[in-house]
Amino acid sequence: MKQTSTPLDYPELQGTTMRQGLWGLLRGGIYNRQLFKQDASAALIVSLLLIPQSLAYALLAGLPLQAGLYASILPAIAYALFGTSGVLAVGPVAITSLLTFSALSPIAVPGSDEYVLLAILLALMSGICLLLMSLLRMGFLANFLSHPVMSAFVSGAAIMILLGQLKGITAIPVQGANLPDQLISFYQGLGQLHLSTLFLGSVFVAFLYWSRNYLAQVLQKWGLKKTGAALLARMAPLVLLVVATLGVGLMGLDKQGIQIVGKLPLQLPSIEWQSIKLSTLTTLLPMAMMISLIGFAESVAIARTFAAKRRQQVNSNRELLGLGMANLAAGLSASLPVTGGLSRTVLNNDAGALTPMASFLTAIAMGVILLFFTGWLYYLPQAMLSAVIIVAVLSLIEWRQLPHLWRYSREDAWSWIATLSGVLLLGLELGLLLGVLVSLAAWLAKNSRPHMAVVGLIKGTEHYRNRQRYNVELHPAILSLRIDESLMFANAQEVEQQILKEVTLHSQLRHVVLMGSGINHIDASGVEMLAQLNGLLKEQGIFLHLSEIKGPVLDKLKLVAFVKALSGDVFLTQHQAMQTLIRVEEEGK
Amino acid sequence: MKQTSTPLDYPELQGTTMRQGLWGLLRGGIYNRQLFKQDASAALIVSLLLIPQSLAYALLAGLPLQAGLYASILPAIAYALFGTSGVLAVGPVAITSLLTFSALSPIAVPGSDEYVLLAILLALMSGICLLLMSLLRMGFLANFLSHPVMSAFVSGAAIMILLGQLKGITAIPVQGANLPDQLISFYQGLGQLHLSTLFLGSVFVAFLYWSRNYLAQVLQKWGLKKTGAALLARMAPLVLLVVATLGVGLMGLDKQGIQIVGKLPLQLPSIEWQSIKLSTLTTLLPMAMMISLIGFAESVAIARTFAAKRRQQVNSNRELLGLGMANLAAGLSASLPVTGGLSRTVLNNDAGALTPMASFLTAIAMGVILLFFTGWLYYLPQAMLSAVIIVAVLSLIEWRQLPHLWRYSREDAWSWIATLSGVLLLGLELGLLLGVLVSLAAWLAKNSRPHMAVVGLIKGTEHYRNRQRYNVELHPAILSLRIDESLMFANAQEVEQQILKEVTLHSQLRHVVLMGSGINHIDASGVEMLAQLNGLLKEQGIFLHLSEIKGPVLDKLKLVAFVKALSGDVFLTQHQAMQTLIRVEEEGK
Repeated sequence: MKQTSTPLDYPELQGTTMRQGLWGLLRGGIYNRQLFKQDASAALIVSLLLIPQSLAYALLAGLPLQAGLYASILPAIAYALFGTSGVLAVGPVAITSLLTFSALSPIAVPGSDEYVLLAILLALMSGICLLLMSLLRMGFLANFLSHPVMSAFVSGAAIMILLGQLKGITAIPVQGANLPDQLISFYQGLGQLHLSTLFLGSVFVAFLYWSRNYLAQVLQKWGLKKTGAALLARMAPLVLLVVATLGVGLMGLDKQGIQIVGKLPLQLPSIEWQSIKLSTLTTLLPMAMMISLIGFAESVAIARTFAAKRRQQVNSNRELLGLGMANLAAGLSASLPVTGGLSRTVLNNDAGALTPMASFLTAIAMGVILLFFTGWLYYLPQAMLSAVIIVAVLSLIEWRQLPHLWRYSREDAWSWIATLSGVLLLGLELGLLLGVLVSLAAWLAKNSRPHMAVVGLIKGTEHYRNRQRYNVELHPAILSLRIDESLMFANAQEVEQQILKEVTLHSQLRHVVLMGSGINHIDASGVEMLAQLNGLLKEQGIFLHLSEIKGPVLDKLKLVAFVKALSGDVFLTQHQAMQTLIRVEEEGK
Repeated sequence: MKQTSTPLDYPELQGTTMRQGLWGLLRGGIYNRQLFKQDASAALIVSLLLIPQSLAYALLAGLPLQAGLYASILPAIAYALFGTSGVLAVGPVAITSLLTFSALSPIAVPGSDEYVLLAILLALMSGICLLLMSLLRMGFLANFLSHPVMSAFVSGAAIMILLGQLKGITAIPVQGANLPDQLISFYQGLGQLHLSTLFLGSVFVAFLYWSRNYLAQVLQKWGLKKTGAALLARMAPLVLLVVATLGVGLMGLDKQGIQIVGKLPLQLPSIEWQSIKLSTLTTLLPMAMMISLIGFAESVAIARTFAAKRRQQVNSNRELLGLGMANLAAGLSASLPVTGGLSRTVLNNDAGALTPMASFLTAIAMGVILLFFTGWLYYLPQAMLSAVIIVAVLSLIEWRQLPHLWRYSREDAWSWIATLSGVLLLGLELGLLLGVLVSLAAWLAKNSRPHMAVVGLIKGTEHYRNRQRYNVELHPAILSLRIDESLMFANAQEVEQQILKEVTLHSQLRHVVLMGSGINHIDASGVEMLAQLNGLLKEQGIFLHLSEIKGPVLDKLKLVAFVKALSGDVFLTQHQAMQTLIRVEEEGK
């Protein structure tokens, strides 16, 4: 396998040029034959590998398998035209497919024409939501999904996908929108276990798991270069696909009860638009919003990681536009909601894709496969698709996050636990909502217990540090307090009480200096508190001073005449404050 | 008027001794005859002045007038025994009375026995809520009511009280749970205007308003000392009460349609406990919780202000206990929910009350008045009570907050506007909820847009400041960035993007130093971001360093092996970082 070059070898692909998508790339005149050659060879490899994945995610979403192929063509082209990432591969993805299934399976029979119609609606509505978010510059909303919440949500969803796909490798039906229901349904269906399917499925899972995790190492030991070995290992599913299809076809295993893919009819469902009710739309809306938000959050995180490796930038609002157009395209091609997927992006990257042109060419290749070669997939066993899904989602379950979070921050650990248990016990939507609420509450609770320290001078320096951590010099008439928190409504009273408490401990006190290096904002409640504190200390003959207040914070304080009312002064640095006040005190004696 | 001494004249009353309430005071053996004399004289004045106020707030709550007197006796004693403030006066208060009316008037006829029973239940339930909050140490909950939200809530409630009390001085009925309903009802009732009542009411309002705002100045001009003049001015309502009662009685105005207080029967309502349904309790519960929370927030703010003036401390959980017991006592004395009130506390303070003994003695005096002198109030015109309420709540409407907030912080101004419009248009409960949600969202939005600055050395010092605000020295191979925000899920991605963007602008970059003087917390999403940033910069051959990271933050980072994985170093100060890195760079050349 030849060593592919990376985007860093092409200076013209770095910086801001990539912000324009495929269209800008061509118009910019920097695209050339050499770039095209590498993009085209990447596209060929990727399109072959995407076949089992695309079929599998359509299966997961409860749609006819060909919908997975549809979702990999026009949406990928739309994203290539409007998105900003040079490498992000857009198409059906495990989490959005599960969300689609979870939204639609309660209101229609999976696989039916009605179900397909609803999936199309869901894709169109997600597209509109994403475009609106782009228009209103609301990309920041995705930031409110904290890392622990997203990790636990994806882990929980992965567990539910895993259980659902047990059907594919055991023939036991597994149903239910939460873990207990799924387990009960599996237990009740144990009698329907189909041994040949179980055998075949287990072999598939074992092979895919092994090749995903160990094959590259083995190939490297055999002398291949690292990137070559990694790419070749990723081709393993393709080898399995060929072997399994040939094997099932030649041995006629489908007659022994092994489910096969069969014919993939290339006709769109008969859609009766007039049958769509307003109530259906309002039922789908919350799910469409959730799919948009989670899809965007996942996708933009992937795009940013890869962009940073390539020293490129990702623009949130342009990403929303790209994904929005991709979902409109998904709706128009009768498929399901799409987003940027990690595994297909890694594939794209490893195959050497340089620009959005690679995604465009991949989509063209998929189109050719769809038109002329789906017949070759007739004998592909469905157990292989389930195995693909199972192995893919196994890596999404992040158990190790919990001990990690527990050690680092209890609040984050509780957010993780709340989200995961919420998803497993209450379902996807309520689980996510619970997680978001717990993470917001945890953050505010943290803000409401500010850390404060009495600081003093470290001898021989100009630095002031916590007296409990360093050996520092203090002055009996001057109390310097560093407040390690923005002053805001949730902590203003607490801060005032702590300051007043500290003041009562110093009988000779003449000056209080608040060191504001940790104060990033002061809201109206905070200013009110400072004004009150200023008055109270003044009554006791104590001057209140400020030091190291940040520029933007001081600008705002000046707006409300607080600085004028202040009994003391505002110092640029804590050292200036101490030098000045010590001089004043000594002159006073 | 003799000059009273203040608590600051008594060293034994300062510091922590007051934390024990009346009981601890007596047991501590520091209470003496001199303190008692001053407390008793304060109590006598205060008890006389509380009569019109107590009757007025019962009227506002829709209860028989004597309930206001009941509410000023046992609850005040309970608070004196269990609370911590030496001066806080507990009894019926405008806002809690309005909340009581708003909770009960939709489910029972004001003044009826059923209504009284419900008020008792409400007081008992509020007491239990407060005690539970004390037990669970949940006093911090009150901190989530931001200053703008409380200001707007109180202003909105005051406007609604004002409109409601127009009935008392015009005889036009004003009803409704929101402003539009009240205005419509006033308009429709215009025909019922009673001219003598309007005349009398206007005179009362004008006199009370004038004496509240200007009498003290006039008295000072006449030669009285400041405190004496203030106290004497506060006695004006008592003078008016005597004059009005005598006037109405002597002229027989009650026969011309002027509503009078009449007989205040000293019998408790016949209570049928078995008539209380579970559904009634669940209906009252949210209101009881709201009354507890708002009552506590108001009361503790007042207690803290006065405690600070006296160099004393207030303990939130002990306050919750005190107020909880006071509300249980209110329930047991067949009255309404109570809390610490600003006007009665100011009265107590100005009259020279030193210890909780003053409140206790005031309560005893009120009891004597209730038992023997209510007959004297027979001819008191109800218009006088309405006038007392109107003048009291006029000062609660804080219009000036809006321009002040608008200038200082748009987010806070919007919280204020949202709360006020919410209260006036949606009612008290939904208005408050709306305000709290808007203020939380505004704070998070602020957190999600972090301020960052490229910093450089101010020549001749060891201080590093924003290059856009100061003339500073920069080094081409070293980028120092100060992050003025805690790193958390809502801003982690934004911070990473800003850093990476800045990095792309520097071609010779070898070191990035993150200056963490403004970083107060790093949550799990923040650590994840830093780890990823570290990896990305490493790939580009750039070292990541940290400086001025606060002790508690660094302690946590060390827990998760982040510091070990860091490509660069952690420096105590920014100056150390720069000196070391510049040396490294020069040696490298």
